[in-house]
Amino acid sequence: MDVVEVVPTFEQYAFTFGGVAPLRRIAPGTALRLWSDDAFCGALRSTKDLASEKVDLRFVNPQTGPFYVEGAEPGDALALHFVAVEPARDWGASAAIPFFGGLTSTDRVATLQDPLPDTTWIYELDRARNTVTFAAQHSDLRIDLPVEPMLGTVGVAPPGGEVRSSLVPERFGGNMDTPQMRAGTTCFLGVNVEGALFSIGDGHYRQGEGEACGTAVEGAMTTTLIVELIKGAAPAWPRLEDDTHWMTVGSSRPLEDAWRIAQVELVRWFGQLYGLHAMDAYQLLSQITQAPIANVVDANYSAVVKARKSLLPRATAYGGLHDELRSRAASLL
Amino acid sequence: MDVVEVVPTFEQYAFTFGGVAPLRRIAPGTALRLWSDDAFCGALRSTKDLASEKVDLRFVNPQTGPFYVEGAEPGDALALHFVAVEPARDWGASAAIPFFGGLTSTDRVATLQDPLPDTTWIYELDRARNTVTFAAQHSDLRIDLPVEPMLGTVGVAPPGGEVRSSLVPERFGGNMDTPQMRAGTTCFLGVNVEGALFSIGDGHYRQGEGEACGTAVEGAMTTTLIVELIKGAAPAWPRLEDDTHWMTVGSSRPLEDAWRIAQVELVRWFGQLYGLHAMDAYQLLSQITQAPIANVVDANYSAVVKARKSLLPRATAYGGLHDELRSRAASLL
Amino acid sequence: MDVVEVVPTFEQYAFTFGGVAPLRRIAPGTALRLWSDDAFCGALRSTKDLASEKVDLRFVNPQTGPFYVEGAEPGDALALHFVAVEPARDWGASAAIPFFGGLTSTDRVATLQDPLPDTTWIYELDRARNTVTFAAQHSDLRIDLPVEPMLGTVGVAPPGGEVRSSLVPERFGGNMDTPQMRAGTTCFLGVNVEGALFSIGDGHYRQGEGEACGTAVEGAMTTTLIVELIKGAAPAWPRLEDDTHWMTVGSSRPLEDAWRIAQVELVRWFGQLYGLHAMDAYQLLSQITQAPIANVVDANYSAVVKARKSLLPRATAYGGLHDELRSRAASLL
Amino acid sequence: MDVVEVVPTFEQYAFTFGGVAPLRRIAPGTALRLWSDDAFCGALRSTKDLASEKVDLRFVNPQTGPFYVEGAEPGDALALHFVAVEPARDWGASAAIPFFGGLTSTDRVATLQDPLPDTTWIYELDRARNTVTFAAQHSDLRIDLPVEPMLGTVGVAPPGGEVRSSLVPERFGGNMDTPQMRAGTTCFLGVNVEGALFSIGDGHYRQGEGEACGTAVEGAMTTTLIVELIKGAAPAWPRLEDDTHWMTVGSSRPLEDAWRIAQVELVRWFGQLYGLHAMDAYQLLSQITQAPIANVVDANYSAVVKARKSLLPRATAYGGLHDELRSRAASLL
Repeated sequence: MDVVEVVPTFEQYAFTFGGVAPLRRIAPGTALRLWSDDAFCGALRSTKDLASEKVDLRFVNPQTGPFYVEGAEPGDALALHFVAVEPARDWGASAAIPFFGGLTSTDRVATLQDPLPDTTWIYELDRARNTVTFAAQHSDLRIDLPVEPMLGTVGVAPPGGEVRSSLVPERFGGNMDTPQMRAGTTCFLGVNVEGALFSIGDGHYRQGEGEACGTAVEGAMTTTLIVELIKGAAPAWPRLEDDTHWMTVGSSRPLEDAWRIAQVELVRWFGQLYGLHAMDAYQLLSQITQAPIANVVDANYSAVVKARKSLLPRATAYGGLHDELRSRAASLL
Repeated sequence: MDVVEVVPTFEQYAFTFGGVAPLRRIAPGTALRLWSDDAFCGALRSTKDLASEKVDLRFVNPQTGPFYVEGAEPGDALALHFVAVEPARDWGASAAIPFFGGLTSTDRVATLQDPLPDTTWIYELDRARNTVTFAAQHSDLRIDLPVEPMLGTVGVAPPGGEVRSSLVPERFGGNMDTPQMRAGTTCFLGVNVEGALFSIGDGHYRQGEGEACGTAVEGAMTTTLIVELIKGAAPAWPRLEDDTHWMTVGSSRPLEDAWRIAQVELVRWFGQLYGLHAMDAYQLLSQITQAPIANVVDANYSAVVKARKSLLPRATAYGGLHDELRSRAASLL
Repeated sequence: MDVVEVVPTFEQYAFTFGGVAPLRRIAPGTALRLWSDDAFCGALRSTKDLASEKVDLRFVNPQTGPFYVEGAEPGDALALHFVAVEPARDWGASAAIPFFGGLTSTDRVATLQDPLPDTTWIYELDRARNTVTFAAQHSDLRIDLPVEPMLGTVGVAPPGGEVRSSLVPERFGGNMDTPQMRAGTTCFLGVNVEGALFSIGDGHYRQGEGEACGTAVEGAMTTTLIVELIKGAAPAWPRLEDDTHWMTVGSSRPLEDAWRIAQVELVRWFGQLYGLHAMDAYQLLSQITQAPIANVVDANYSAVVKARKSLLPRATAYGGLHDELRSRAASLL
Repeated sequence: MDVVEVVPTFEQYAFTFGGVAPLRRIAPGTALRLWSDDAFCGALRSTKDLASEKVDLRFVNPQTGPFYVEGAEPGDALALHFVAVEPARDWGASAAIPFFGGLTSTDRVATLQDPLPDTTWIYELDRARNTVTFAAQHSDLRIDLPVEPMLGTVGVAPPGGEVRSSLVPERFGGNMDTPQMRAGTTCFLGVNVEGALFSIGDGHYRQGEGEACGTAVEGAMTTTLIVELIKGAAPAWPRLEDDTHWMTVGSSRPLEDAWRIAQVELVRWFGQLYGLHAMDAYQLLSQITQAPIANVVDANYSAVVKARKSLLPRATAYGGLHDELRSRAASLL
């Protein structure tokens, strides 16, 4: 299986979903290996690089893409199977950006208080041990943490002619910032425009659920993925599948609405997977779902709802596509 | 180590935190074995028992307690270590109660729509296999699910002379409905009144995160716990510790505020555990916390934030009380 | 018509709804003249008196009451008609209390930021001109503002044995902080316990909608009111009537839920007033309601929804009680 | 003073802010008379026309525009002074669209309940009496209501290359749905792109605050306005001025965040108008603002905060532009 490699130049970065000409056209079934820059476009390289001075907020969360998928039409489902998500630099960066994050007032949660101090942390990557190192700024504590790479941002062009910042998570995917978006996961997104026009970016070497301070261990990434198309099977909201879980992602504000969206979408999916009446799916899922918060910092908040496959009778979605992609992926590793 | 057994009569059930005379006085260090009725006071015993007909909403979430802990004063921390949480009946019940739950309008999320159909599910318990069985009402699907017992409700009397329904989760604990409240967990609560006046109830044979439909697999429970007191160490919000995680629970509306509360409380705790500056704790926790939603159905919504101990240098809270209680608990099993 | 005068001593202040023995028993039809202290119990008397130093947060929003209304039973409606609400001191006080208010983080909207500066403003009352004077602290601006007296807090004992702080607005009324609670208004509250046990307090010499900084021009007040009882007519949420408007008040979080509650309650009321189907009431009210925010600072947020009588055919509620009370009130002025 | 008349063809309607070529270029100072279609593009003409059958949701809230204002650059303020807003048809339409509105579950406030019945109301306009007539569908009640024309939607192109649906209210204005957007009001919007690219639409013959059912008395409109530009004076959020009030509009979710935004923006404006320190402006506004909810039904919720000029010392904004525009407008009437 061939792999198409793409390393965009800075000028090729996209900063929106929609509104950008395709970087490349691909056929369903294509495998891609994509380099993506970190959320800061590499601007934070030392703890002395402060976000307020070095980060141009017009140029954050650069996307690699968009890719035009041949044959994709509104109403189809795009499947993106992540084969590998690998750090492409030897350091990651995180920052407490003034008036951005979950434990500060923001332009939306508007108060009259002063901002928290603009602070940058650099995480050195140890490839041998597969760790990044947290180094406290106000004391000597250093902690090596396992690298758990993921993509903050995976999305398609929105419907209705809208163009949205790559900072936005929505029905079209986008900046969901969930650690579930990692190697081994298949992401199903509804197609809104011809060609789907998907892109990825915002690699995280690791991230806690909620992404409390607003930024993860942000790092350039090399992502290998396989692209597939399922005609006429668009989910209403992003669905994820891996070997162990059925998952949905809702994004809105307040956070309970994000959760509601994800929970309703999983009820719908369980109707398809198991022929369950909505009331029975509601009941069953009430007893088995996990509900990790994804982010409480972006333009919308995101919540994941997931059901463990091992608790359930065997079922397949989209003709067993996830398992098939896992097999195909094996040949790429 | 002696164990004090308490099986309340119906007349002894408490339905509030605060406002009730102590059921019993105990000394710190006491082990208790408490029987608690299910949230419906046992009123739902068949799928024909509908909540709207059989459940008296003045008498739900019956509490076993309150217990007056000798020497407990406002500003102290009460520690409740759960040794064992065991089903006390051979069935559990769950219900979609009209205008109650996460995927329906409610008295708070008020709409003009009709309610969802009042529906009851009964889960038979198989003690040998340690499962409860979900049985769909609109199809033949039956699924055996592992029993994972937990307590929906653990709390103390609130401050300021308030008396709160046992349906409420708050700063004083209460109806947090998190699956983390299980055997092996130590729960630290700030004491607000002399004697602390804690109670427990609302046993769940299992529950998904979010408790989507508003009720878990509700069941009578036998809970073995050890009670301890730490003078002058009241946390602002409930803290939990088990062998693997540091955890906090926030409860408010909207859900992001519950999460904020829990995340800030864990920042504070990490300041104590590791001497971390708040900005460093904010950063570190942003990269390592898990954030499972507890409930999106109660009078306040609850969110848990947790940090895995194995990622962190060794630290002890409250003089290593959790480990010590684990040791003491071993003698009770 | 006789008027019963009550001036409580400090020891007689109530700080909760429910949980307090009646200050006095009265018969329906009684007129009362009640003195109430300001929300700070008079502790802020100069701009040098800071809330963090002078205000004991266990003793805020003192209530005058509760009053046991003979014959009142759960399910009845209590009607309180405000005849006069008059400043009882020559100054009012307002404060930006650290971590309290609408444009700051709070214990619920929890952030890691520093608080806003603890600041007190004193408003001198000019009885001749009926004004209070805003005096800027950081510049020389002084503005005389009309006195528009209102009560922040009017409520009855809650149901279910709950006892709630006088800072809480809820289904039982309480700390709604709406400028609509003024002379000329009749407030209808559902009775939850025998005797209703209503109280009033938290006088404001004036207040903007939203009560942005968390405190109004707080002042001791003399309130003249007439108490009536309507058997079996409890509204679900507080309803207000004056000569010009039908009004409802919802209290919850987030603010949209407070609004939803009020809007649904007014739909219900219009069903009674005009025999309107819920869909028609929904439509009609969509085109005519005003929706002033009451508070975004209390334990619940409150929103008022109101419909101008002059837009509508004539209708009467509760047998025309408001008009009758207006007549009776005339004899008291 | 000349007036440029524009009556767009259906093909010229814009359905987004941004992403559309200018309909026309104009110089600052230009007066325009613009015809705009109703939110349904005229599709609902009888109570038998149901939204689910007749309204193409890709084509709602048609905008007249965008207009390229010569010289407008990012950072400037665009001033739109509404001279006249006049019904352009003899009927208006309103509808309860399934899963859209404030008292129903929606795609965001997602539940499993059935929708409310799809219902359309037609309001006949009586030009002589200047009324529209509400006609109940389930009873005989008919009520004549005064026509109070306003524009639901006034906005400029968003920043960052975004393109937003004309259903969205945001920092750039848009679908704020406030009754304050009427003849006599000047609206100040920050310019984000060269030419500003403003458009208007969504005329309402009248609307209650909150726009509870999701639609007002929607009607085609003829709007006369004067366009001005203030270099380098972009407000962060929409500001409105009329002869009686200073006003700001915030749009976000949850509703308290919309209110916070508006209240902070008015604090900022009062800093400019009166040289007030933020704490003093916070305090003063807490005692004098009105806070009418604008909408609780759109993609963001909107809240208005307003301060009555008559309570305040005289001040002028933007060099007294509003007063000047009022004078110029007089010549157009």
